[in-house]
Amino acid sequence: MNLEEKFKLLEADNAPGQEIRQYQGDLNSMMIGEKLDGVFVDFSHGDVDTFIPTPDSDAVWEKGFAEGGKQAYTEYRGDAEIRTGLAERLGKFTGKPISAENELIITPGTQGALFLALGSTVTVGTKVAVVMPDYFANRKLVAFLGGEIVPIALNYKETLYVKGIDLEQLENAFKSGTKVFVFSTPNNPTGHVYSDSAITKIAELAARYKVTLVVDELYSRMLYSGEDYTHLCACDRIPENLITIIGPSKTESLSGFRLGVAFGTPKIIDRMERLQAIVSLRAAGYNQAVLNTWFQEPAGWLENRIREHEAIRDELLKVFNSANLKTTSPQAGSYLFPQLPKLSVDLHTFVRLLRYQANVVVTPGTEFDPNCTDCIRLNFSQDYEAAVAAAKRIAKMAKIYGI
Amino acid sequence: MNLEEKFKLLEADNAPGQEIRQYQGDLNSMMIGEKLDGVFVDFSHGDVDTFIPTPDSDAVWEKGFAEGGKQAYTEYRGDAEIRTGLAERLGKFTGKPISAENELIITPGTQGALFLALGSTVTVGTKVAVVMPDYFANRKLVAFLGGEIVPIALNYKETLYVKGIDLEQLENAFKSGTKVFVFSTPNNPTGHVYSDSAITKIAELAARYKVTLVVDELYSRMLYSGEDYTHLCACDRIPENLITIIGPSKTESLSGFRLGVAFGTPKIIDRMERLQAIVSLRAAGYNQAVLNTWFQEPAGWLENRIREHEAIRDELLKVFNSANLKTTSPQAGSYLFPQLPKLSVDLHTFVRLLRYQANVVVTPGTEFDPNCTDCIRLNFSQDYEAAVAAAKRIAKMAKIYGI
Repeated sequence: MNLEEKFKLLEADNAPGQEIRQYQGDLNSMMIGEKLDGVFVDFSHGDVDTFIPTPDSDAVWEKGFAEGGKQAYTEYRGDAEIRTGLAERLGKFTGKPISAENELIITPGTQGALFLALGSTVTVGTKVAVVMPDYFANRKLVAFLGGEIVPIALNYKETLYVKGIDLEQLENAFKSGTKVFVFSTPNNPTGHVYSDSAITKIAELAARYKVTLVVDELYSRMLYSGEDYTHLCACDRIPENLITIIGPSKTESLSGFRLGVAFGTPKIIDRMERLQAIVSLRAAGYNQAVLNTWFQEPAGWLENRIREHEAIRDELLKVFNSANLKTTSPQAGSYLFPQLPKLSVDLHTFVRLLRYQANVVVTPGTEFDPNCTDCIRLNFSQDYEAAVAAAKRIAKMAKIYGI
Repeated sequence: MNLEEKFKLLEADNAPGQEIRQYQGDLNSMMIGEKLDGVFVDFSHGDVDTFIPTPDSDAVWEKGFAEGGKQAYTEYRGDAEIRTGLAERLGKFTGKPISAENELIITPGTQGALFLALGSTVTVGTKVAVVMPDYFANRKLVAFLGGEIVPIALNYKETLYVKGIDLEQLENAFKSGTKVFVFSTPNNPTGHVYSDSAITKIAELAARYKVTLVVDELYSRMLYSGEDYTHLCACDRIPENLITIIGPSKTESLSGFRLGVAFGTPKIIDRMERLQAIVSLRAAGYNQAVLNTWFQEPAGWLENRIREHEAIRDELLKVFNSANLKTTSPQAGSYLFPQLPKLSVDLHTFVRLLRYQANVVVTPGTEFDPNCTDCIRLNFSQDYEAAVAAAKRIAKMAKIYGI
């Protein structure tokens, strides 16, 4: 594949946050009816002005800055003291002890961790199993690195609760030379949490077929009532090569600091550090200090944040499902992935119309699965009233443009 | 090349800042004589506790943080308003107008810019001309991307002033299918500034042979008295594909913020943004605000900083050259690249002994040219007295271990 073709696959105009760069075209002539009034809501990412960063994150940053050179120039894998604290707290969270010295790296965001993990395990021709739908960067990264995507279906339509991926299909992929499997749990965009039995089975299959696993647990802290979460790294049998990824950008609203963490097999962590050395050197030094607030927020802070999100989730599900936009119920995280009825315009035009006519930004389903041309993703970490009103406008728009 | 081989080429144990991860081995038994007393100096990078960050950088950061979501979630290429100011000031600095909309991207450090520029122009089999010696990441990036290195020699030994690269060798490389040429001016590690005629010729050759140029100008602001600097982007004839890289991490001591900028050909900037979307999303949002201090520091601030560095440069050159450690005089930047006499131990052992016995950290020449086994690089952006004393210890060590 030449560079021209490769970068066509990395097209980012529809990626979350990039809407401002989209060519609006002649939306006025395509618009049916009047503009729908309402407070602007950008569902492409969480609203950190509503759900603000963890308490004291800026004060902790200032402390990092005051440390001077020691904090500006950390090891590429991150400051040793900060890694020590993180390894302890993440070990407790996942139930799997982590060595701060050899098994953990601090990265520029969870995105950075994902890039480094795949960059360290995928090269030209490597077969990589990727769930459809899943976080948009997974398949783009495989394309950039010259790997070959082996799609694994997640059946999420026409069901209130996703059952999970087809483990037989996964085993067949592993049997046919797949070397790496990357997936997010909770799944982005559906909010599906892989069950304990699925996680145990995936770990066991990967161990048996010597497949490298990259498990993206970015949203695992925001777990709704009644749900259970299994950390693959704590399973009895795990593959030799396993990297777990997590970061404070979502639940904790610390995205503006670009901080992420990866932990797992020392040999791969070592490669990730070598790669980080030529990609961005390190996560911004002063920002790393803010990781000291993570997993030690004030008592009740996390529970409250989850409760507030659960209330928004429940109300939006009601709005969508009663308007016949079938939507699975997320078990964790803050994404909703409603399915649209048949429309008179294509998905990308509808998304542009949503912005132009209804003052709402969403991300088209094609970012998560190129074949998903009838779903939209919403990050509902938003102001409650504004989000509910915007969801109603989306439902109205679906009706206006429905066939 | 498989992953094992590829990551061997990316080995980072000797990279600046990674000394802490080196295996010390049995240095005690190899050590000749006693330990040399003196204040610890880490020449692997600048000392930002001595040359502190630009005035008010933390206050400006706080303002960015206070902006909230707008600053946390910028476009992947960086906040539009900040880009507008930067494009204007960098256009003035280089003498070449820059479009903030299409020709500029904010990156996580200059390292990030370099990765994105090469990641957007180099793929498996691409021939890339790389100067030897030059910044260590250049050749490692080409290796990671599967390109082929075409070495271009910089003759820097046995001369007080580097004459420059051999332009005939460069033209021959261009004639033989080289598609990309990446180089730093001032050169890292020697401090050589490419002459006006060399820059004009390189631009002209690249245009003629349709070679993509990536020009790393990271240190160009710290230009010593009597020196001239030519920005390639402002030449009359330039190639179709040209990316210039610069950042505030060095002269301005803002490395702890991880900020860099690339500007040039819109098509390549666009690719760089697509790649950034899957590598680290964006430079940390709040940190981007600090770019508002750049190229508008208080009057006299830059001149004073240059004067202080020039004084250290002059004194260290005296120490090294009078001890017969031949060292070219840097015309800009804060690197010195002294040549060692023949030693009884290999270069990497000597570097470890410097740390263990003489309390001095330096970077071995092999990081900049695998064949350069007799030079060490020092970043002399340090406390004057401590640096001079440490340089004297280096000279003493060279005498102790000289054959």
